[in-house]
Amino acid sequence: MTDHIFDFIGGNAGEWKIVKMETVIGDPIQDASYLKIVNSNLQKTNEDLWTIKGLVSNVRYAEKEEKEKLLAIQAGLGRPADTCAALIPIRKNEAWWNLAQDERRKIFENKSHHIQTGLKYLPAIARKLYHCRDIGEAFDFLTWFEYAPEHSNAFEELVAALRNTEEWKYVQREIDIRLVRL
Amino acid sequence: MTDHIFDFIGGNAGEWKIVKMETVIGDPIQDASYLKIVNSNLQKTNEDLWTIKGLVSNVRYAEKEEKEKLLAIQAGLGRPADTCAALIPIRKNEAWWNLAQDERRKIFENKSHHIQTGLKYLPAIARKLYHCRDIGEAFDFLTWFEYAPEHSNAFEELVAALRNTEEWKYVQREIDIRLVRL
Repeated sequence: MTDHIFDFIGGNAGEWKIVKMETVIGDPIQDASYLKIVNSNLQKTNEDLWTIKGLVSNVRYAEKEEKEKLLAIQAGLGRPADTCAALIPIRKNEAWWNLAQDERRKIFENKSHHIQTGLKYLPAIARKLYHCRDIGEAFDFLTWFEYAPEHSNAFEELVAALRNTEEWKYVQREIDIRLVRL
Repeated sequence: MTDHIFDFIGGNAGEWKIVKMETVIGDPIQDASYLKIVNSNLQKTNEDLWTIKGLVSNVRYAEKEEKEKLLAIQAGLGRPADTCAALIPIRKNEAWWNLAQDERRKIFENKSHHIQTGLKYLPAIARKLYHCRDIGEAFDFLTWFEYAPEHSNAFEELVAALRNTEEWKYVQREIDIRLVRL
């Protein structure tokens, strides 16, 4: 029943080596050398140094046409050439969560072009969103990105574009973790 | 961190006496005599006969004006005169969850008037929505209603109106549990 929930575990072992951890805004998390991603059982664990749980859910903002474009073009995780990854946990502030659905959608897409910007970098940059706010985590979302080394510059562009949006003014905590596959 | 997650526990003890349990569509759940509602720790329990976990989250469909109307008029739970309650767990089918946000909103409000219908019965019928799909429960939502006995007919009208909507065609499982406060 919980095969859509995953533990992202930072510690001393894992299939991904952490090459950089940067606190963009808010409190940092403990430095770790490796990351592993495993199916979660929803119980809190203290395995290794830290664990952030994230779950795969339905789309919250994408409209029909956008969803169809995304499905047509997006890449799955695990492509052999994608040896680079990024894990970006963020938390938005209470002002964001107190907005109604249409207000959040307007900021998210009409003003910040979150989906359009993501589409520009598909299929080179594969991404997967995990939700964690509703299960009591310190972050609201984890986004996991995978890409080949030759797309590193494109990835930096994508991250910079998103951080420069009105939507990002609501981000009160963000950690940027970069990884390479072992 | 999980004070927004609750266990709805059916069994042989609790502050609410179950007076009727009806399976509207789909599989039934085990008959129970009492219900208690307690803060959850997110671990699966087998306390009493059954437990359904539900969490309080942000609004998913209400727009600014609707949200303001709801906030202005809605009543809190626990009014002394509200000795009647209903717990209605539902599950929607995969076709619903595969729809984009704008498609779900159109069915939910433009065609089914879910928010407008709820507003008509406020503040007499207090209601609170709990989400459970994302945490691996057998249901997607629990709605909890509280009202005074003199509003029983109004409550039946509200439930009948919602069940008669296009939105409800996506409901594949629904249990209707009625309770009185001890």
